[in-house]
Amino acid sequence: MSGPFLEVLGGKKIEPSPLWLMRQAGRYLPEYRETRIKAGSFWNLCLTPELAAEVTLQPIHRFGFDAAIIFSDILVVPVALGHAVVFEEGPKLQPLQSTDGLERSEKQWSVRLAPLYEAIRLARAKLDGDTALLGFAGAPWTLATYLAGGGNDNQIAAKLWAYRDPKGFGLLIDILCDCVAYHLIRQLKAGADAVQLFDSWALGLAPSQFERWVVIPTAKVVTKVRAALPGAHIIGFPRGASLAGLQRYRTTGIDAISLDTAVPIDWAVRELGTNTVLQGNLDPLALVAGGTALREGVETILKATRGQRFVFNLGHGILPDTPVEHVSELVRLVRGDG
Amino acid sequence: MSGPFLEVLGGKKIEPSPLWLMRQAGRYLPEYRETRIKAGSFWNLCLTPELAAEVTLQPIHRFGFDAAIIFSDILVVPVALGHAVVFEEGPKLQPLQSTDGLERSEKQWSVRLAPLYEAIRLARAKLDGDTALLGFAGAPWTLATYLAGGGNDNQIAAKLWAYRDPKGFGLLIDILCDCVAYHLIRQLKAGADAVQLFDSWALGLAPSQFERWVVIPTAKVVTKVRAALPGAHIIGFPRGASLAGLQRYRTTGIDAISLDTAVPIDWAVRELGTNTVLQGNLDPLALVAGGTALREGVETILKATRGQRFVFNLGHGILPDTPVEHVSELVRLVRGDG
Repeated sequence: MSGPFLEVLGGKKIEPSPLWLMRQAGRYLPEYRETRIKAGSFWNLCLTPELAAEVTLQPIHRFGFDAAIIFSDILVVPVALGHAVVFEEGPKLQPLQSTDGLERSEKQWSVRLAPLYEAIRLARAKLDGDTALLGFAGAPWTLATYLAGGGNDNQIAAKLWAYRDPKGFGLLIDILCDCVAYHLIRQLKAGADAVQLFDSWALGLAPSQFERWVVIPTAKVVTKVRAALPGAHIIGFPRGASLAGLQRYRTTGIDAISLDTAVPIDWAVRELGTNTVLQGNLDPLALVAGGTALREGVETILKATRGQRFVFNLGHGILPDTPVEHVSELVRLVRGDG
Repeated sequence: MSGPFLEVLGGKKIEPSPLWLMRQAGRYLPEYRETRIKAGSFWNLCLTPELAAEVTLQPIHRFGFDAAIIFSDILVVPVALGHAVVFEEGPKLQPLQSTDGLERSEKQWSVRLAPLYEAIRLARAKLDGDTALLGFAGAPWTLATYLAGGGNDNQIAAKLWAYRDPKGFGLLIDILCDCVAYHLIRQLKAGADAVQLFDSWALGLAPSQFERWVVIPTAKVVTKVRAALPGAHIIGFPRGASLAGLQRYRTTGIDAISLDTAVPIDWAVRELGTNTVLQGNLDPLALVAGGTALREGVETILKATRGQRFVFNLGHGILPDTPVEHVSELVRLVRGDG
């Protein structure tokens, strides 16, 4: 396996930049919606290797992206830990108040997550050698917000737990570091060429809390993965981190930082680009809008990243009502055959 | 009227820093909840001058903050423009698709908003000369997100409108600039000692969009207010702006920037503090948690801002389940008599 994506992660500058999109296997694609219905439930889609591999490959077949990302969900880690997760307009979990009930044996994690590794094997076998396959996991802080808060969009419970009982919350984060690192290692061993850590709820944290619950745990996960698999490629996505936070985040040892839409790309090239691969940061709304907004958004990024080690991507996941033809237009614009 | 708050805005360094809290008149206070019930509806509370003035003064009587902020809502501007706003677990508006129906006459705005100016007169008359009274308004971008999206937490419609039809969206922003400036001027004339512009949904904007819809309209509003009232004090709060965005934002001519919780305070002092007054940025969750979290959070800010022109405040509005005694503790910590 080589190809532009891994060459960039390995330190080479490539023109045009390799390209993939966060949440590229998703509801904006009619073929995805069809498979999703066939699967019955969202979890069934994640946990049936043939179906997970199938939707993983759909955007590659349609657009020829340079990387496929295995279809799964960041909440498989709570599932591995024995904590139930139900999806009903966004995931719902029983809010966690102590780490006592969490499963800590790798053997049990493996039983729960085995179908995901099988999906990676299936997808890798069907991809050509120029298309990278990405595995991923939620980062410990983001997973802790779901566990403590019981669902999306509620980081308050985790923040309070962290302030009131930093020791107990630290134990939760440590367990999550172990399980996340395990999950990344297993994905890499199953055939993933690189992995991405999603810290989707890193935004709005006070700097001291960002350091303690985002930077340090991410560094721990990176160290654990590299101890098992030296040279493993790890991309980090601390969504909504401040620019100062991004500068701290690069000290974690990750290979690449995925930038959200609000990060000025020229700032990132100047301040982070010298020894970190960058990825991102097109506004997903510009992709929905298309036309001038899309062309100008792409051009700004291409201009700023010329001559850089860069992976083209969105600043956040692709939105369900994105017109498929806008994605084709994006591919043409990035590859310069528009 | 003088007092520490206005002295700091006027350029003086004051120790201890003056102190007020965003949403300090609110549900965490038992006396507020009582008045809220008496008022019947949230709008009735806003539009009955005696009740609005009463809740404005409640946190001053209890904690002796250095500034009172008039009790109102950022969505009074859509009301002035003739666009209905209903509160049912967060505001609901008919999503706006064109500017055609918006009321553009100042006389009509005045009829709709007169009770707010009367509340300011009443509150100012009852405050001592050392306590500043703040007026406020939503910033044009944030108001546009509510108008286009029909409520809280949906910026997608405004972002798409701005990308697809920048000219039409620009017209909406221009109307909002006019009405917001009018509303600020009337509040200052009624007795407000300073005003704050809340750009609560500035977060996550692509830098080009932040420039066009946050920075430029804010500068327009500031220019209009100063043309009518030279020397008017205007604080800006672009919540969630990136650090690069904050550096752009200070070019708008505002006197002071209110910092959200994620902004590293030492960075802000270094990069913005030389010619801008700073305000903020204690984590509202640290105030809910109390204890060590509160003490450490306050100390970090006090240490970084020593010798600066600074106004102590939260990084975002005070949360309804904040224990009242933690607010008393905060006052003691900031004033150094804890």
